[in-house]
Amino acid sequence: MAFITLMTDFGIKDGNVGVMKGVIWGISPDAQITDLSHLIAPQNIREAALILSRSAPYFPKDTIHVVVVDPGVGTERRAMAARIGDAFYVCPDNGIVTLLLERANSGHQSSEFVRLDNPRYQLPVVSHVFHGRDIFAPAAGHLASGVPLQSLGTPFTDPVQLALPKPVRTQHGLRGEVIHIDHFGNIASNVRVEDLGEALARKDQITVRIGQTEVKGMVDTFGERPVGQVIALLGSTGNLIVSVVNGNAAHVLEAKVGDPLEALF
Amino acid sequence: MAFITLMTDFGIKDGNVGVMKGVIWGISPDAQITDLSHLIAPQNIREAALILSRSAPYFPKDTIHVVVVDPGVGTERRAMAARIGDAFYVCPDNGIVTLLLERANSGHQSSEFVRLDNPRYQLPVVSHVFHGRDIFAPAAGHLASGVPLQSLGTPFTDPVQLALPKPVRTQHGLRGEVIHIDHFGNIASNVRVEDLGEALARKDQITVRIGQTEVKGMVDTFGERPVGQVIALLGSTGNLIVSVVNGNAAHVLEAKVGDPLEALF
Amino acid sequence: MAFITLMTDFGIKDGNVGVMKGVIWGISPDAQITDLSHLIAPQNIREAALILSRSAPYFPKDTIHVVVVDPGVGTERRAMAARIGDAFYVCPDNGIVTLLLERANSGHQSSEFVRLDNPRYQLPVVSHVFHGRDIFAPAAGHLASGVPLQSLGTPFTDPVQLALPKPVRTQHGLRGEVIHIDHFGNIASNVRVEDLGEALARKDQITVRIGQTEVKGMVDTFGERPVGQVIALLGSTGNLIVSVVNGNAAHVLEAKVGDPLEALF
Repeated sequence: MAFITLMTDFGIKDGNVGVMKGVIWGISPDAQITDLSHLIAPQNIREAALILSRSAPYFPKDTIHVVVVDPGVGTERRAMAARIGDAFYVCPDNGIVTLLLERANSGHQSSEFVRLDNPRYQLPVVSHVFHGRDIFAPAAGHLASGVPLQSLGTPFTDPVQLALPKPVRTQHGLRGEVIHIDHFGNIASNVRVEDLGEALARKDQITVRIGQTEVKGMVDTFGERPVGQVIALLGSTGNLIVSVVNGNAAHVLEAKVGDPLEALF
Repeated sequence: MAFITLMTDFGIKDGNVGVMKGVIWGISPDAQITDLSHLIAPQNIREAALILSRSAPYFPKDTIHVVVVDPGVGTERRAMAARIGDAFYVCPDNGIVTLLLERANSGHQSSEFVRLDNPRYQLPVVSHVFHGRDIFAPAAGHLASGVPLQSLGTPFTDPVQLALPKPVRTQHGLRGEVIHIDHFGNIASNVRVEDLGEALARKDQITVRIGQTEVKGMVDTFGERPVGQVIALLGSTGNLIVSVVNGNAAHVLEAKVGDPLEALF
Repeated sequence: MAFITLMTDFGIKDGNVGVMKGVIWGISPDAQITDLSHLIAPQNIREAALILSRSAPYFPKDTIHVVVVDPGVGTERRAMAARIGDAFYVCPDNGIVTLLLERANSGHQSSEFVRLDNPRYQLPVVSHVFHGRDIFAPAAGHLASGVPLQSLGTPFTDPVQLALPKPVRTQHGLRGEVIHIDHFGNIASNVRVEDLGEALARKDQITVRIGQTEVKGMVDTFGERPVGQVIALLGSTGNLIVSVVNGNAAHVLEAKVGDPLEALF
């Protein structure tokens, strides 16, 4: 049983995601396919990289993750397939796998990359504008049906990597930034559990500052504070987040991606 | 073949629904999973209860319905799995199954409930904020792979039930309220076919009043009236609804959930 | 393995699409079902016809495409199932298959149609308002499980066909119109690669006019022009489109479906 996930910035009204599934099923009829998100902001590679890196670890070994967020379609950017650790990735070579590679490298997991340049594993006619259908979906379908990664094209070793903002240590703590606002309005920062380290032993002593708001003390869970209160806590993937209990923090604090956020301790 | 449905208030942009599917497939690779809705209004248990109760009967026997609308995540609220009649439900114990229980009780169907407190059937690390991934999806996956309900945790018999508004009999008919506005703008009330009873034998004599609007006579179908006309009829699950033929009744009548609606006969 | 696609104007918040899948799985447990789109504009048969015609060819042979965009539910309009070429279609008889029929006829492919009037292949109770659940989903499920098309009901030969706007030849080229705006804001016209014909041999000599904007020369791909520039090119299914490189052409040009568009050469 092969599992495939799809993430794009295509939206869900035009049928293009369905078309990719049709192409995959035509090659690998048994593939189980799920959507991760098709509402990535248009051409927003960073957002795709973030969601991919926190979602992929929860899928079975050998799952094939297809990501089509592709501002460079129709340029010389490479189309690629990769094995990183024990999962496969099929996407434009534009940095989407940056966070996964960082994690694999720090965990001494191997990775390999091929350029999707073997026409045998593309649709017979490749358009200039819809590589999701013509190149990426066929590659995923063939991987799912047992074609080795190496057969899909020419190996390479220098995938594009994003320069993602890292939190910086300051005199009184860490200065990071907002990297994601979720559906509930939770504000996720790039300050991670590892960055906070020993300070977490006294989390009531940590102050989180965002815009004009200071949140005194971090909590473990929403249930510790009354509805409507602004809280700071670790999100489900280890990032420092600012939330409003059963409310929308991004609206209340007028926060957006890129805003600075500080943890003081 | 095990069937699983997912309903949440997670939205569809952040990848969290996909993550739940990954967790399920890791435990039960053959499970067929479908979405019911991920656009339940945040923390709106009533809306989830309503959509669940009218959708579940159309799925095969033994389908597992997972619902994560969970304002109490991180409080002492129970996480539960239940068998109600011939289907399974995995959700927080906050009243989501109220309507299903009412129906099961009136049909003399049995039900059983367990608290999801057996760590063997949770992810190894359980976060404080994403029980959909860490507790509910694993429970569904294990049910799908044949683990008995009783193995998932401690039995209990007093699930939380919502006090849902019921229509009241008045001198001239029934006074109910709006309980749902659908994608088309159809206005659904809590007045049901059973409440109208014999009055339906002369449905042209029924007047439906909502806001300043009076609809004289109920019809059987949209096709009986011209495009643009306000009509009252029974919806596909037996609730009295107010619609505009090929239009949006909620916009035209400025109706919203909670508004009063009367049926006079 | 049977493949089924679903396209509706139901939206994705009310659970109705999930219910259709439940009905299908109850009849054909092995069916693989995917969504094409559920955000067709309410009652917009033309949009459904367009998306269906460009998506269906990418699915495996014998895929069953279910389309429920049904302004006539509850009138005398026929419910139908069809085989057109090597795929099946289940939908109201309101013109949704017009473009597929044109293509099949021009390719000398056969087609056959039946009215879904055999109650054996409907749900036991058929509502007046949700034929997607009560008639179309069951028909698809039975087709998927091997019931012959002819068993579903009475044959007929005169499916409703839409009078879709065709581009007209003018003194200096072609006058067409906008037929679709996609998620990215790309503006698709009904001027097709076949209409442009030999003029494409000198595509730098083609001027595309829409509203007050003139685009001089067509390109092959987004990558040929800088970000933000308005371009004209052939879309992935052979229609002339106007785009803004990594931008939203419909917003920039304030274009909408039905607007005139000219190709001058």
